[in-house]
Amino acid sequence: MRTGVWLVGVRGSVATTSIVGALALRAGLTGPTGCVTELPGVRGPALPALADLVFGGHDVIATPIAKRAEALAAAGVLPARLVAALPEELAAVERELRPAPTAGSQADRAAAMLRDLAGFRERHELERVVVVNVAATEPAPRPHDGHADPDALRAALTGPDEVLPPSSLYAYAAVTAGCPYVDFTPSTGLRLPALTTLADTHGVPYAGHDGKTGETLLKSVLAPMFAMRHLDVRSWSGLNLLGGGDGATLTDAGANAAKVRSKQRVLGETLGYLPQGDTRIEYVEELGDFKTAWDLITFAGFLGTGMRLEFTWHGCDSALAAPLVLDLARLTGAAHAAGLSGPLTDLAFFFKDPLGTATHSLADQWTRLCAFAGRLHQGGVDVTAD
Amino acid sequence: MRTGVWLVGVRGSVATTSIVGALALRAGLTGPTGCVTELPGVRGPALPALADLVFGGHDVIATPIAKRAEALAAAGVLPARLVAALPEELAAVERELRPAPTAGSQADRAAAMLRDLAGFRERHELERVVVVNVAATEPAPRPHDGHADPDALRAALTGPDEVLPPSSLYAYAAVTAGCPYVDFTPSTGLRLPALTTLADTHGVPYAGHDGKTGETLLKSVLAPMFAMRHLDVRSWSGLNLLGGGDGATLTDAGANAAKVRSKQRVLGETLGYLPQGDTRIEYVEELGDFKTAWDLITFAGFLGTGMRLEFTWHGCDSALAAPLVLDLARLTGAAHAAGLSGPLTDLAFFFKDPLGTATHSLADQWTRLCAFAGRLHQGGVDVTAD
Amino acid sequence: MRTGVWLVGVRGSVATTSIVGALALRAGLTGPTGCVTELPGVRGPALPALADLVFGGHDVIATPIAKRAEALAAAGVLPARLVAALPEELAAVERELRPAPTAGSQADRAAAMLRDLAGFRERHELERVVVVNVAATEPAPRPHDGHADPDALRAALTGPDEVLPPSSLYAYAAVTAGCPYVDFTPSTGLRLPALTTLADTHGVPYAGHDGKTGETLLKSVLAPMFAMRHLDVRSWSGLNLLGGGDGATLTDAGANAAKVRSKQRVLGETLGYLPQGDTRIEYVEELGDFKTAWDLITFAGFLGTGMRLEFTWHGCDSALAAPLVLDLARLTGAAHAAGLSGPLTDLAFFFKDPLGTATHSLADQWTRLCAFAGRLHQGGVDVTAD
Amino acid sequence: MRTGVWLVGVRGSVATTSIVGALALRAGLTGPTGCVTELPGVRGPALPALADLVFGGHDVIATPIAKRAEALAAAGVLPARLVAALPEELAAVERELRPAPTAGSQADRAAAMLRDLAGFRERHELERVVVVNVAATEPAPRPHDGHADPDALRAALTGPDEVLPPSSLYAYAAVTAGCPYVDFTPSTGLRLPALTTLADTHGVPYAGHDGKTGETLLKSVLAPMFAMRHLDVRSWSGLNLLGGGDGATLTDAGANAAKVRSKQRVLGETLGYLPQGDTRIEYVEELGDFKTAWDLITFAGFLGTGMRLEFTWHGCDSALAAPLVLDLARLTGAAHAAGLSGPLTDLAFFFKDPLGTATHSLADQWTRLCAFAGRLHQGGVDVTAD
Repeated sequence: MRTGVWLVGVRGSVATTSIVGALALRAGLTGPTGCVTELPGVRGPALPALADLVFGGHDVIATPIAKRAEALAAAGVLPARLVAALPEELAAVERELRPAPTAGSQADRAAAMLRDLAGFRERHELERVVVVNVAATEPAPRPHDGHADPDALRAALTGPDEVLPPSSLYAYAAVTAGCPYVDFTPSTGLRLPALTTLADTHGVPYAGHDGKTGETLLKSVLAPMFAMRHLDVRSWSGLNLLGGGDGATLTDAGANAAKVRSKQRVLGETLGYLPQGDTRIEYVEELGDFKTAWDLITFAGFLGTGMRLEFTWHGCDSALAAPLVLDLARLTGAAHAAGLSGPLTDLAFFFKDPLGTATHSLADQWTRLCAFAGRLHQGGVDVTAD
Repeated sequence: MRTGVWLVGVRGSVATTSIVGALALRAGLTGPTGCVTELPGVRGPALPALADLVFGGHDVIATPIAKRAEALAAAGVLPARLVAALPEELAAVERELRPAPTAGSQADRAAAMLRDLAGFRERHELERVVVVNVAATEPAPRPHDGHADPDALRAALTGPDEVLPPSSLYAYAAVTAGCPYVDFTPSTGLRLPALTTLADTHGVPYAGHDGKTGETLLKSVLAPMFAMRHLDVRSWSGLNLLGGGDGATLTDAGANAAKVRSKQRVLGETLGYLPQGDTRIEYVEELGDFKTAWDLITFAGFLGTGMRLEFTWHGCDSALAAPLVLDLARLTGAAHAAGLSGPLTDLAFFFKDPLGTATHSLADQWTRLCAFAGRLHQGGVDVTAD
Repeated sequence: MRTGVWLVGVRGSVATTSIVGALALRAGLTGPTGCVTELPGVRGPALPALADLVFGGHDVIATPIAKRAEALAAAGVLPARLVAALPEELAAVERELRPAPTAGSQADRAAAMLRDLAGFRERHELERVVVVNVAATEPAPRPHDGHADPDALRAALTGPDEVLPPSSLYAYAAVTAGCPYVDFTPSTGLRLPALTTLADTHGVPYAGHDGKTGETLLKSVLAPMFAMRHLDVRSWSGLNLLGGGDGATLTDAGANAAKVRSKQRVLGETLGYLPQGDTRIEYVEELGDFKTAWDLITFAGFLGTGMRLEFTWHGCDSALAAPLVLDLARLTGAAHAAGLSGPLTDLAFFFKDPLGTATHSLADQWTRLCAFAGRLHQGGVDVTAD
Repeated sequence: MRTGVWLVGVRGSVATTSIVGALALRAGLTGPTGCVTELPGVRGPALPALADLVFGGHDVIATPIAKRAEALAAAGVLPARLVAALPEELAAVERELRPAPTAGSQADRAAAMLRDLAGFRERHELERVVVVNVAATEPAPRPHDGHADPDALRAALTGPDEVLPPSSLYAYAAVTAGCPYVDFTPSTGLRLPALTTLADTHGVPYAGHDGKTGETLLKSVLAPMFAMRHLDVRSWSGLNLLGGGDGATLTDAGANAAKVRSKQRVLGETLGYLPQGDTRIEYVEELGDFKTAWDLITFAGFLGTGMRLEFTWHGCDSALAAPLVLDLARLTGAAHAAGLSGPLTDLAFFFKDPLGTATHSLADQWTRLCAFAGRLHQGGVDVTAD
């Protein structure tokens, strides 16, 4: 089951790490640490093998992926020995990377995207291509009448306006091409009525939003802990310091707001009330690809006694995100193969701001993920749940 | 369903906080924060009402419980206004407290305990009495032939030896009196073949060991998080600084070892391997009833990239433990009422070192607890699980 | 040497704690912990005795000081027993508190302030009155021609404009009345050419700005440590979470900016370069009078090896600031008695943003403070330094 | 002024880092970050230039220093590019490394050490050789009559006993050879009456003990901060997790005790009282050459209000220690050149457990260091102080 993985933002840190990692795994040079789809409860025959994934993608920058990989190795994100061992494999991937279309109307650019996706599929005789957005976070777009339904959208795209933000133009191209689409960022992506309608029309499944890789991952186990123990969370304040590409983007207030919103959702929905305090994201270039998040949680126990929990998470975003990108490509590809379409709410485990009304508790999300994978692996049976 | 709660170590911080809290709840002076049995998934008609709990207990010290409560209020563990509002209620409890029997052979002392339990039950016309051990942690006892079976034990108790450590002598008295028994400490308690046999003979349920109130509570959500994300935990080191009564006890190397062992079990069993690092417990008198635990977890993600998580938990052990004592008394009492006997492995949610082979994941323990409570509330149906 | 201490913002947490503490010290109910002027290197005969301080002040709020003290006791800032032991002393202070003048032109208000200061001095036969500003932080004022010199200022004050921010109007009244003035906040206070000229004319000494009580105190020992070891500080990021009165004020962006600026000065001036990163201040009401500051410092050592230091400071601002207010009143009073006038740069030890070009290293500031106190105690000799 | 630096434990991480760093500095490949003797207040003409240092040493292991350097580069302690750029320089150093003498009586071994030192000095026409002990920490030795005076010692060394621990046998050889001696570890080294007498006889200066590179460095600025602010430190607890060579050594209880003792001295001597709490050192192999120290300090302010400070130090011991080794070699060499002998108490800045009664405040130590360096640079004048 040869499956294409088309990465939007393919020369970024996350995409590069995903690609180097998949190539290294295929070559037997490393193990599957961090890959959820290699765990007993999830792995199985319905998923495309890691060795069956073929990579391509778009990017606005042109730095060769091998150079990006070397830079990541120098920064401690990747082992240099892996990059050094895979020159031909990386060169082969390089040939599948395309510049992000920038000329003409948005309709013209979408058409160029469709051509790139079609060429990729044909060259490699792929059964399907999963499009995953790992580009930098965008600010929320301005409302536009074209967002309401597919016809209005198609008409608007031919005009001079920037009707869709880039993530949504890629989503439009993906679903139009019949490709499953995964939003690994908090950008708008498929979250417009015109696009979800279009996805339904084309029968493609989709998943999102915003890969859960650090502070929110911790929130999704700690908030349920407080809830299960009937402890009263009074305040939850956090500071995220990050130096990578997304950090620079987030100095833009609009993009930052989008990210912060998706980070806080877990608290209100898990606890049933919103504690005091905010989550802040700040760019500190010197931190490079590593991110430090500090959270202070104050809470009351029996008879109102005040207590507190503090944590510091020092993580490498690319190393945490990259295996999840592979997981999502495999799971979404398998869902498409099984004939599923629409929002894959069972993949909430992977996201800060999951589609649908799924729980925010990581444990409950895990239970749903395992059940979903189980249904996929059982094959013939109906894979829809609930 | 009037239920007695007989606390071993009744003048200690945990017991005093439990009692003041239950009296304050009954009087409508406070809310049920921290009480798991007041949460939607657990509460229900099978549990004795908080207002139906009657308190008594043994202790080796004689400080009036009202004085202990005042001292806890001064230390910030209890609100002073609650203690001030409950003078008569505390005086009524004081009348049910008995000195720990210390005269004669261990058989003589057990007989005195049985008389105290019987008198308590009769004076208050209680349907049952649940015995909960909240006394200071003991070192592991020396092996003795009397530990093997009830007959050998009964014979040995009449001799001059200290056959059983105090926690186990109380357990012996409890099960002989037909009382459910809960071990809230890591002491030996019921964990001797002679005693579990005896519990079965008398048809009493029991639960334990070692209330999960701080660092281990966090481990039971964080370790599953690492496992579910396929992250490789390389080391997990912790330091617990505590100043309360149990802290002083734990400067005794034997007691400390018992506590540390019960704290580390969760890691090996959840992760499937034991990371490097140790958990240490140190007594710092100045910290009083508050405990500070610091943990450093180093882990590897995709391609071996090293990352780390640190947390500091600053909790009040008494405020965390006290509502769980009430929860366990209610759940164990309800189990007894439902005719259950033997180890209540479905109560693993409450313990660092739970009986049986139950999971160490808090989320899974919560699922089991809710199912168990559900069966109790459904009444007629069979309450045994698995 | 009876010395008046006139507090602007006298019903706030810091002022109330200063007053209760001074009264308790005088009554022998507590010790001088936190009072720098009671340490061997600083104390001596030139300072007015704590028992010789007489308190008065202005405030815009009217809550009785005894009520404020009780509220602080309930919040754990003050021991309740002290407040309970000093009812008459607090009532005596209450009689010396005046509402902040609000009627008429700024000249009218300044005149009312002068009358209040004069009445206070006369009623208590005080040798001098030190005015200390401990009111909430203000935003930076708009420029005004009246700020340039005393004559322009006097003329402008009679008009309808709000020429001076409140802190500066108090400073104007203080120096006009011949009173030494201490700015314990980052507000403008005396920092206008018209006011410093006026202070010189009236021969009064003054000190400021912004009491150094937490994160900046740590910076003033840690930054020199990095400098003395030739370590290269790459980034220094901080988050201050605070819930007290000043916290609420600081949600105002202008006031926050003033505070943040005074906090960062120490880094640039000590290290000789400004590391990446910012200091943020956020209001979290639930934290009450306690403040939690978290700082992450990344630095490079020999051959560029990256390392990091993190700290969390959990302090009670009022308890840290109050003894310094007493210290400053005593030292500034003694300086005035010794005939000093102008900026007291030797008091840099106490301030985040000290007057003059004094060092930001706490150790160097301490050396200067001890030398200054030594000169005061030697009496006859010239007290001016450098 | 060509100066030899003879390192005991020359193939260890600290020594290797010192050597690679000095070679890289000489070659202009890196800057002097971390080198205190390159700071304005300390540098000057009296110190041997970094380019004039010549390296040699003893070790019990035989791994080529270039291999050790490569291993340190792989662990992130050294930049790989530096190691790659210095193959010939490292080979030249390799030729000056000798196996630690192990055959015969201790007198025989001392004689072999003397021959090695003499050969090194002659081959390179060195004006002097400074011996620096950077070998693994030893447990305290058993008392022996030979420790009392040089004659008894010389006699005892010829017998079969292990009279001296290795660090002291090197110290004996060093001073006998007229070489200044620096103890960078907490081992016994020169701290025996027989050896200090011998050092005086031979007119050599010496310095020690135990390089101050992490937690104790912080204590030496934080403890004075609390003292200067008259804050009452109630407890100071610390945990040091380290994985490097010294970590493994410190699992030996005796060596650990020596290290912990030297770490706590700063608190008692700076504060004037010993707070509650202990410092612990634990070996966690996975942490490699990096060390994580966590400290919790609880303290009381005005009126007894309880507060707390926590810090986490994540440092690379080799990167912190190596430049100090170079600093000490330069300063001790210059002291010898200036005719100084005996304990160099002005070098307390560098040590956890400094010789003499010098202050433990880093700022005061810095002042003394700068004054000492100033006297050295002034040349003709008398360099002895106090």
